[in-house]
Amino acid sequence: MTDRLIYLPLGGAGEIGMNAYVYGYGAPGKERLIVVDLGVTFPDMDGTPGVDLILPDIAWLKERKAQIDGIFITHAHEDHIGAIGHYWEQLGAPVFARPFTANIARRKLAEHGLPESVVKVVDIYPHVIDCGPFQVSYLPISHSIPESAGLMIDTPQGRVLHTGDFKIDETPVVGDPWNAALWEEVSKDGVKALVCDSTNIFSHAPGRSEATIGDAIAEMMSEASGMVVATTFASNIARLKTLAIAAEKSGRSVVLLGRAMRRMVEAATEVGILTGFPSVVSPEDALNMPRENVMLLVTGSQGERRAASAQLAQGSYLGLKLKEGDTFLFSSKTIPGNERGVIRIMNQLSELGVDVVDDAGGKYHVSGHANRPDLEIMHQIVKPEMLIPMHGEHRHLREHVKVGNNAGLTGIVAVNGMMIDLTSTAPKVADYIETGRTYLDGSVQIGALDGVVRNRIRMALNGHLIVTLIIDENDEPLGDPWVEINGLPETGRSNAALVEVVEEDLTQFVNRAEAKTLRDDDKLEKELRTIARRSAQGEIGKKPEVTVIVSRLG
Amino acid sequence: MTDRLIYLPLGGAGEIGMNAYVYGYGAPGKERLIVVDLGVTFPDMDGTPGVDLILPDIAWLKERKAQIDGIFITHAHEDHIGAIGHYWEQLGAPVFARPFTANIARRKLAEHGLPESVVKVVDIYPHVIDCGPFQVSYLPISHSIPESAGLMIDTPQGRVLHTGDFKIDETPVVGDPWNAALWEEVSKDGVKALVCDSTNIFSHAPGRSEATIGDAIAEMMSEASGMVVATTFASNIARLKTLAIAAEKSGRSVVLLGRAMRRMVEAATEVGILTGFPSVVSPEDALNMPRENVMLLVTGSQGERRAASAQLAQGSYLGLKLKEGDTFLFSSKTIPGNERGVIRIMNQLSELGVDVVDDAGGKYHVSGHANRPDLEIMHQIVKPEMLIPMHGEHRHLREHVKVGNNAGLTGIVAVNGMMIDLTSTAPKVADYIETGRTYLDGSVQIGALDGVVRNRIRMALNGHLIVTLIIDENDEPLGDPWVEINGLPETGRSNAALVEVVEEDLTQFVNRAEAKTLRDDDKLEKELRTIARRSAQGEIGKKPEVTVIVSRLG
Repeated sequence: MTDRLIYLPLGGAGEIGMNAYVYGYGAPGKERLIVVDLGVTFPDMDGTPGVDLILPDIAWLKERKAQIDGIFITHAHEDHIGAIGHYWEQLGAPVFARPFTANIARRKLAEHGLPESVVKVVDIYPHVIDCGPFQVSYLPISHSIPESAGLMIDTPQGRVLHTGDFKIDETPVVGDPWNAALWEEVSKDGVKALVCDSTNIFSHAPGRSEATIGDAIAEMMSEASGMVVATTFASNIARLKTLAIAAEKSGRSVVLLGRAMRRMVEAATEVGILTGFPSVVSPEDALNMPRENVMLLVTGSQGERRAASAQLAQGSYLGLKLKEGDTFLFSSKTIPGNERGVIRIMNQLSELGVDVVDDAGGKYHVSGHANRPDLEIMHQIVKPEMLIPMHGEHRHLREHVKVGNNAGLTGIVAVNGMMIDLTSTAPKVADYIETGRTYLDGSVQIGALDGVVRNRIRMALNGHLIVTLIIDENDEPLGDPWVEINGLPETGRSNAALVEVVEEDLTQFVNRAEAKTLRDDDKLEKELRTIARRSAQGEIGKKPEVTVIVSRLG
Repeated sequence: MTDRLIYLPLGGAGEIGMNAYVYGYGAPGKERLIVVDLGVTFPDMDGTPGVDLILPDIAWLKERKAQIDGIFITHAHEDHIGAIGHYWEQLGAPVFARPFTANIARRKLAEHGLPESVVKVVDIYPHVIDCGPFQVSYLPISHSIPESAGLMIDTPQGRVLHTGDFKIDETPVVGDPWNAALWEEVSKDGVKALVCDSTNIFSHAPGRSEATIGDAIAEMMSEASGMVVATTFASNIARLKTLAIAAEKSGRSVVLLGRAMRRMVEAATEVGILTGFPSVVSPEDALNMPRENVMLLVTGSQGERRAASAQLAQGSYLGLKLKEGDTFLFSSKTIPGNERGVIRIMNQLSELGVDVVDDAGGKYHVSGHANRPDLEIMHQIVKPEMLIPMHGEHRHLREHVKVGNNAGLTGIVAVNGMMIDLTSTAPKVADYIETGRTYLDGSVQIGALDGVVRNRIRMALNGHLIVTLIIDENDEPLGDPWVEINGLPETGRSNAALVEVVEEDLTQFVNRAEAKTLRDDDKLEKELRTIARRSAQGEIGKKPEVTVIVSRLG
């Protein structure tokens, strides 16, 4: 069979987050593979209660471990790098990244007791990494974390440009500015496929530069009479600098609160990305300064329950307390699903008398992703044979293809698990791979469909009722059935204890049950469960989850 | 003691939803009381899994049942009327409402087997309802449901104006237009307190009329090539009419889908509020019509899992299927917390090839609440001695007071449970009442702090492990401890079954336990729980909820 070039998203295509893409080249089934990004996404109470982290399902890759030549990380956001520590052992290939990203990758591997040496620090274009049938170059690009990169992936079938997350920002404050000439250069000889970020396809206005918000923030901080607190993602080094400079301009010293905030500033300073950051003062020193001379830069822009922002909103953090006249700036956008947590903090701050300032329609925050007109600029520069939108929900990918079609580009909506053959001039679906999500639950990786989380959700919705019954050596009940409840009301309609009502119904059944039933565990359990559910339904109007434990003596 | 006039919010002040306000007049502790609105709010998986409905805690009112002279409902939204069926018996006073609202109230009472005759249909101002020391008049006002009203409450201490939910809309399509002259008239002799809607205090632009969106919607529907589906709140009769007229203009017949949608159109037509609504066709008839001649008007604008919109997004509803080229309009705003559900539907529609249109920044939707400039108009007309913001989270109430202060008004942030004495010229806090939330769970009303829901959340986060142990007549273990799990991984670190690992640890303990421990239920249970949690932690990295059941024979 002839060799083919394939693209297979395992995460990030059909969702925002958990990016994991595979490229392959070779005879069908025997392709040499590279992985681009290995990210995570975050659980929520709605669908994944108790889960610690959500990882892409990489079963397909694990079965092809010997075919994997390299893992390329585009940037250090968790949804691109977060799974590297959890999965590296199962994939076993070298990890390529730019210095800042490599620094983060190494920490993650070290946390899992893995050798940091597997991470190879790469130079940017025109440096080329030879990796099986692929030649890969890192193309610096602007985004909301330093040293982001797109990838130029040269293959025997032509060139693929994989943008990674990006925005078009010529003055990004920290990190690489948008370099149109670079993208023109790598595109001039023809590009087979542009695999392109889709996050902001529904934002119709051109994106704005990080440099546009500094003055407004400085003005706001100058006008504020008390202490100012600002929160944003700790990894957004440019924003941290924007906020810190604004603080300095308004006569405020900067205090870093939250482990991630301190660690990110230290790391970025260490590797030389972050320069000109004002000197910071400790929380203790800040306590002795006039409030109007302090700006706290804190973690928790998404309303995370244990972050510095949440603790300040609840009263105090490291001795620092907010009060009437202070100002709290969310220099961030709330990710869908996090609204309730953010609003909770806003109201707690309101109770303290603190004025809350949100992004004010973009005045104090800009996105890190390319908006629709910026994506169109990328399309026009690259002029690919085919456009493959990635990093987006289905609606983003579909809209992105439409935008491409309107400009005459051939595109395809390729979601997680769709293997796309890029060999000929139009993309075509080569296969559907079973994919999904893997949950990190405590220290265990479980499949999303294993039923563990489904059972938790059921207990949360319905409560849990436990029936125990002892059967003696003669297959006769020893005593009556015993009921315990968890997450259910103590009493219902009859004003008697729920457990007693259910026990009575179960006892009646057991006393009348035939010997055949009492000897048959399955049948006995089924009957006890049915009666318990019916009895509870009559008493409290809902059917609980029921666990039946029959203990047989002898 | 001298008589006093009091205001006490039991719900709606410190949250959006669950409105319930009390006014009282008389000697302290012996006031005659009226209740304004008795609403509900809706549960979510985050904080109230499995709960069916959230009601205000009315313990304070129940203890004063004999002092209550009347219950006044301002309009028929669930967050103002939803608790009437659940609570009427506990309060026992006549219920006053305008005809449409009374119709809904009666249905709710009937569902609980309560006499519909307790609902008194009222005329609007200048009609006066004498109710204990109060004279109450209904002041028609525009909002997103027909026959909304503010209340003029005359007391021996002066006049209180309670706006209810409202917007300033002179062309509301259905229902009462904003009538500035009316509010000027009732204000001209002086108003002691304006108790005022705060929902949209953070919206800085003047509110727009319902009449402004019809043309844009008609244009969109004319341009759409396939079937059009539109969703909004079923109770927003004006919007239903706007959408239906737009459909008619674009050559489309209207199909009503979803029980609430059909019932609301029928009810509004019956009571004569809704006129000029185009005739509708049945879903069966629509199946035989060209797609471009059909508009489905459906329930489920908030992503509700079982509503018509969710079912259409999942494939079909009553035989109607959506496909490539169809258009789905959300003529609505997503309430914070519902984003995930709405986005899920949008992506399912995208998978079907359906184009999703959201409110497009206000083009296809207007709010039912007064924005900040509209609230300022109300303040200026009424010129009250004191401004008491209601219906809002803490941040809304606080901002509303600030806006009032800037215009020279005295205001107070009064949240649920704060009893405000309005007798003198400035409001002052008279008392703090214990309030909270009551959950309707199945058929049982449980207190929010009873621990039932807390236990459900714990099981959802941590899983549930059950230990059973039988102790014989001699206080010795009969067999080994037995473990069952629910919502926990089957295997952990050692690759043995989790239940076996825990059972082994428990067995070791039981075999070595002293007779004293085995005789002491509390001690034995505590030890077994501790060991089970520690054992699970070692194996799976998380500590489950544990229920221990010790059965003693004889």
